[in-house]
Amino acid sequence: MKTLFISILGLLAAMTVNAQKLTSPDGQMELNFKVDAKGKPTYNLTRKGKTVIADSHLGFDLVKENANKAMDFEYKTFADKDKIEKKANMTTGFKIVSTKESAFDETWKPVWGEESSIRNNYKELAVTLSQPDNDRTILIRFRLFNDGLGFRYEFPSQKNLTYFNIKEEKSEFAMTGNHKAWWLAGDYDTQEYEYQTSRLSEIRGKMKDAITENSSQTPAGPTCVQTALQMKTDDGLYINLHEAACIDYATMHLELDDKNMVFTSHLTPDAQGYKGRIQTPFNTPWRTVIVGESGKDILASRITLNLNEPCKLTDTSWIKPTKYVGVWWEMITNKSHWSYTDDVYSVKLGETDYKKCKPHGRHGATTAHVKEYIDFAAENGFDAVLVEGWNEGWEDWFGHQKDYVFDFVTPYPDFDLKGIHEYAASKGVKMIMHHETSSSTANYDRHLDKAYQFMVDNGYNAVKSGYVGDIVPYGEHHYSQPLNNHYLRCITKAADYKIMVNAHEATRPTGICRTYPNWIGNESARGTEYESFGGNPVDHTTILPFTRMIGGPMDYTPGIFEMDLSKVAPGNTSKVRSTLARQLGLYLVIYSPLQMAADLIENYKRFPDAFQFIKDVPCDWEKSVYLEAEPGDYVTIARKDKNSDNWFVGSSVDENGHTSTLSLSFLSPKTQYEATIYADGKDASWDKNPQSYTITKRKVTSKSVLRLKSASGGGFAIALRAIAN
Amino acid sequence: MKTLFISILGLLAAMTVNAQKLTSPDGQMELNFKVDAKGKPTYNLTRKGKTVIADSHLGFDLVKENANKAMDFEYKTFADKDKIEKKANMTTGFKIVSTKESAFDETWKPVWGEESSIRNNYKELAVTLSQPDNDRTILIRFRLFNDGLGFRYEFPSQKNLTYFNIKEEKSEFAMTGNHKAWWLAGDYDTQEYEYQTSRLSEIRGKMKDAITENSSQTPAGPTCVQTALQMKTDDGLYINLHEAACIDYATMHLELDDKNMVFTSHLTPDAQGYKGRIQTPFNTPWRTVIVGESGKDILASRITLNLNEPCKLTDTSWIKPTKYVGVWWEMITNKSHWSYTDDVYSVKLGETDYKKCKPHGRHGATTAHVKEYIDFAAENGFDAVLVEGWNEGWEDWFGHQKDYVFDFVTPYPDFDLKGIHEYAASKGVKMIMHHETSSSTANYDRHLDKAYQFMVDNGYNAVKSGYVGDIVPYGEHHYSQPLNNHYLRCITKAADYKIMVNAHEATRPTGICRTYPNWIGNESARGTEYESFGGNPVDHTTILPFTRMIGGPMDYTPGIFEMDLSKVAPGNTSKVRSTLARQLGLYLVIYSPLQMAADLIENYKRFPDAFQFIKDVPCDWEKSVYLEAEPGDYVTIARKDKNSDNWFVGSSVDENGHTSTLSLSFLSPKTQYEATIYADGKDASWDKNPQSYTITKRKVTSKSVLRLKSASGGGFAIALRAIAN
Repeated sequence: MKTLFISILGLLAAMTVNAQKLTSPDGQMELNFKVDAKGKPTYNLTRKGKTVIADSHLGFDLVKENANKAMDFEYKTFADKDKIEKKANMTTGFKIVSTKESAFDETWKPVWGEESSIRNNYKELAVTLSQPDNDRTILIRFRLFNDGLGFRYEFPSQKNLTYFNIKEEKSEFAMTGNHKAWWLAGDYDTQEYEYQTSRLSEIRGKMKDAITENSSQTPAGPTCVQTALQMKTDDGLYINLHEAACIDYATMHLELDDKNMVFTSHLTPDAQGYKGRIQTPFNTPWRTVIVGESGKDILASRITLNLNEPCKLTDTSWIKPTKYVGVWWEMITNKSHWSYTDDVYSVKLGETDYKKCKPHGRHGATTAHVKEYIDFAAENGFDAVLVEGWNEGWEDWFGHQKDYVFDFVTPYPDFDLKGIHEYAASKGVKMIMHHETSSSTANYDRHLDKAYQFMVDNGYNAVKSGYVGDIVPYGEHHYSQPLNNHYLRCITKAADYKIMVNAHEATRPTGICRTYPNWIGNESARGTEYESFGGNPVDHTTILPFTRMIGGPMDYTPGIFEMDLSKVAPGNTSKVRSTLARQLGLYLVIYSPLQMAADLIENYKRFPDAFQFIKDVPCDWEKSVYLEAEPGDYVTIARKDKNSDNWFVGSSVDENGHTSTLSLSFLSPKTQYEATIYADGKDASWDKNPQSYTITKRKVTSKSVLRLKSASGGGFAIALRAIAN
Repeated sequence: MKTLFISILGLLAAMTVNAQKLTSPDGQMELNFKVDAKGKPTYNLTRKGKTVIADSHLGFDLVKENANKAMDFEYKTFADKDKIEKKANMTTGFKIVSTKESAFDETWKPVWGEESSIRNNYKELAVTLSQPDNDRTILIRFRLFNDGLGFRYEFPSQKNLTYFNIKEEKSEFAMTGNHKAWWLAGDYDTQEYEYQTSRLSEIRGKMKDAITENSSQTPAGPTCVQTALQMKTDDGLYINLHEAACIDYATMHLELDDKNMVFTSHLTPDAQGYKGRIQTPFNTPWRTVIVGESGKDILASRITLNLNEPCKLTDTSWIKPTKYVGVWWEMITNKSHWSYTDDVYSVKLGETDYKKCKPHGRHGATTAHVKEYIDFAAENGFDAVLVEGWNEGWEDWFGHQKDYVFDFVTPYPDFDLKGIHEYAASKGVKMIMHHETSSSTANYDRHLDKAYQFMVDNGYNAVKSGYVGDIVPYGEHHYSQPLNNHYLRCITKAADYKIMVNAHEATRPTGICRTYPNWIGNESARGTEYESFGGNPVDHTTILPFTRMIGGPMDYTPGIFEMDLSKVAPGNTSKVRSTLARQLGLYLVIYSPLQMAADLIENYKRFPDAFQFIKDVPCDWEKSVYLEAEPGDYVTIARKDKNSDNWFVGSSVDENGHTSTLSLSFLSPKTQYEATIYADGKDASWDKNPQSYTITKRKVTSKSVLRLKSASGGGFAIALRAIAN
């Protein structure tokens, strides 16, 4: 009987070589893979028997090999034509050669993060496929976690597949219905759009209004959206599509077939319109599908980090989570300026003599002013001071695709670089360097070694880099393969110099900070700065955790206490769309190992009791608990300090306000805590009375339940100090 | 009467403010400038009353300022449209604001050259033009020499013209007839085409055949030709169109309106299709019209150099004209290889471990072989040895637009870089570095400092750089503004390291070697290497001096003694289309301060008597005399050594052969010379008997006349040794 059973199994294996099933460790998710009648690799995904992703094809269209030749022929002969067309096909004609199933379970410790240890537990199916027509082999690797799926393509080194160019990746994600979605307009150059909330079928109609003006933008198509894309099905399933480990590859968008509700990958083209230039052996990024029964499940997922490679840096002792202040918000609000003079409107570095120019008197980065920030940082326990506008070139830095726009080593005459460094060092404060590239990455690449060496020579160990405007090399995009390679080149080179990097306007993160934890920050979405440019939608910070932050931390720069910006900079009519209490809550809601207290010193001095929370809140965590989370409505997160027994809770809610009932069961059951609760005042609202807040203290334990009412655009923050065991 | 005369002159000046005349120093050339009824700047050029260039317009079409915005509107409002269209117009609506005439006459000494001192004598007309519609001012500067015209556009710094982008330069050159022309197909990426000889009206019909396959090519248009363009009118006037000082600007082609025989400038676009990105103040390159009554006049012109800026290097003592041999022709002929192994067909630098690879045994740049060349150089008085294929990466360097293709510092395992340097130094021989970029200039830019420092550290003071294949950054062209900036950035940075540069496949020279004389060589045309790829047309070297070489010296690599390449590399069916005697003549015909003896050691050892000329001929000159020159037929040039009283004469003739009657009147009248004459044998011809040559000696004076018969594809060389005063 036993023998017979084995025989039947063997027979089944032989029969089903074209259909494979993989089950998640907890048995609730199931991946099915087959090659269909046309030889198309096809997968689907279910959870508890319900379809999450319906049958979806996988593959690539390749660039026809002589298509870029400018000769007046496309094909030399018809024989060539057939051969060229055949070689460009990587979607059909596949056969399964072999499959291999395996399991993995380990717990690893990130250098910094939302948790001090992360479990990576999945089952894996590796399918080797041959395409006999082209005598070549590819591999598709699936990893199925309890909370979702990752898959990638692998191209082994082989004679018939050494170099090839991608016309388009054709990875499908077939939705089972007209889900609700929180989406950003697809664009090759910017993520700084407002999130849209709609049914999938409404994307096309809403696209035009979703695209607002930006310093660099190239909309990707009428139904193209960015990842991470958050969706919710009518029966309450939360689905999130993104990617992990986007290395040497273009950033992916999702293009919706809105008749069939099927997304297909849409890569960012380079300046020649190619979407990928591949040299084998090569693995693509992972495409991820996070699945949960609540918004909290999505935020708790570690799939993105787990699908990245372990840390490649041998020494990480120099990488430190950092809380900082800086000379920045005053420029963003137009109170002061990055530039130094009005005497020149066209700078030629090395020729323009700033010493002969009359200062316009509104330059932010002066030695005296920076020293005020150093003093403030030292007095209030901040680690570092960021200064923008310290270097020559800001008079015409923007909007010209100027190649040689900054040299990264020459300060303005009123910025005493060495004196400032010495002053900061004497106070135990680090300076954070600023490298705005104006998107002339060609120029930045040429200067990188000297710029980093200059930092080391002058005591800087962290840099904020910026990529505002259209890219040089001309025709490239912020999210194309060459630019993604640029960003990572900066990271790895910075690691050689023991420099931490916080890149703004770069592409959206995909968890690479696991591999290179000196990549300590990213912007890649509308941050607080947009509050000064008309304002972020009130629900913005309740969507970010489900979208932008699936890929990694964001340098959101919270902590604004003065919401009426006309009081900061006369003429600025913007109002920050948040209550003051929510600004405190954001230190928990928007995770980052790099947290700024972004407002001006004088505004913090007006609210010392509220400022105490910013002084107290750490930015590195042992544990995170997602208490409540509904995209577009509210997010409340509790996190335990990595270096103490203290917990902190923060919340942000949308324009409708929200009442939270919080069980503190996450607290250590044997410990008593003193809770300091920073909440919206009864009469608070983001638009009418944002500075109305209350601060109350009470003793709590893990059995306590808190009931907190947040105003429209409000939120709260709680510091829970362990006081007795 | 005098008063009246002045008044009339004043009146004339006021009346003719829109028409200006400029006369050359010798009074024979005349430039007329006016602004026509539509406000178009217009010029014409005459010589001895005959029209050389008929009325021709000047100006630019600019890129419409929001044309590259990817939003679904082109103009926000119709008011915008009018404003945008108006701003993009830089061809009409001009008025003369002022004109200024001046004269210039100086003699300057180049660091190296065809002459040890050069006279720069011209009259200048600077016309300031306003365009009231756009409230902006430009200037056109004309310099009229006895042998031609140069003009350029100047854009002063001004509020309404700070940054702008060029859609096309619209400089016209109206020909007066259907001239005979020696032309190259216009192309944004290569000059390695065969010269065509035809009437202007025949260009369109011959274009398709004029475009042959190349490793990187982008034909510019059906009537587009390259400069320098040589023409000859039916009444015997020689006209040459080119450019000088092409700095921070795209390389120009000429697009022919073949109904009206009017050329218009056609610039090389960048990856976004822009043809120039200008930040004022800015001056364009000079557009040049060299005019002569004989071919000799064209070759004797120094307009290109004179229109460049004086030398900007303060110390030039390290710049040395160089005669060299090298490990090169053997790879070009396929006798040996640049690559090291067959074990890998896809290299990842830093990952591919060459030490574990089996050498394929055909690698040219081995330590032992290079030492043979060092010995040979030392024994025969050569200054230096070039070695190609010394560094890792050649297994897949070509044809993939591979970004990280070479690192410029890692030798193959069988190339002992330090040992070779020490060996060469002990013999008084310099090593010439080789940097093939595979046109990945992005990668080269990133490595430049380290690559040059590596050269300095290892005793190299000269580099041959190569730009084979399509450019990275993707979509750029070899001749676009960003690439021209790249080449010059290499030159100026090399000067910082005291390195001489010989750039192959870079853009065509425009005399910039005057300003940066460490730019010691260029290829930028079909050189001797094409003799191994099927052969150059027999008249090729009689056209080069009128075309490619108007811009500056060429590293043509002459000196091939074995014309049947199957004897060098079995399987190579090419035959060098030249007699051996002509190979010697080329050392005079193709001027270069960097001259290679390109053939293999073993071939020189077979013809020691002929090789003596290569050993004797210098490569830096006090004086040059153009004895006879007809494009496509023959060129014979005499040059006096800069460091002795010796003269050398060389000649190259076309497939029809040629008999030269040479008056030696250029010799010092009081000196007697021993002439060693290397001539074609009576039965010589390039195709049947190329190695038939005679060597005769006789005593001559300035009164002597030599009669020399050159074979088909032949030529001669004469060494004139001063023996008595």
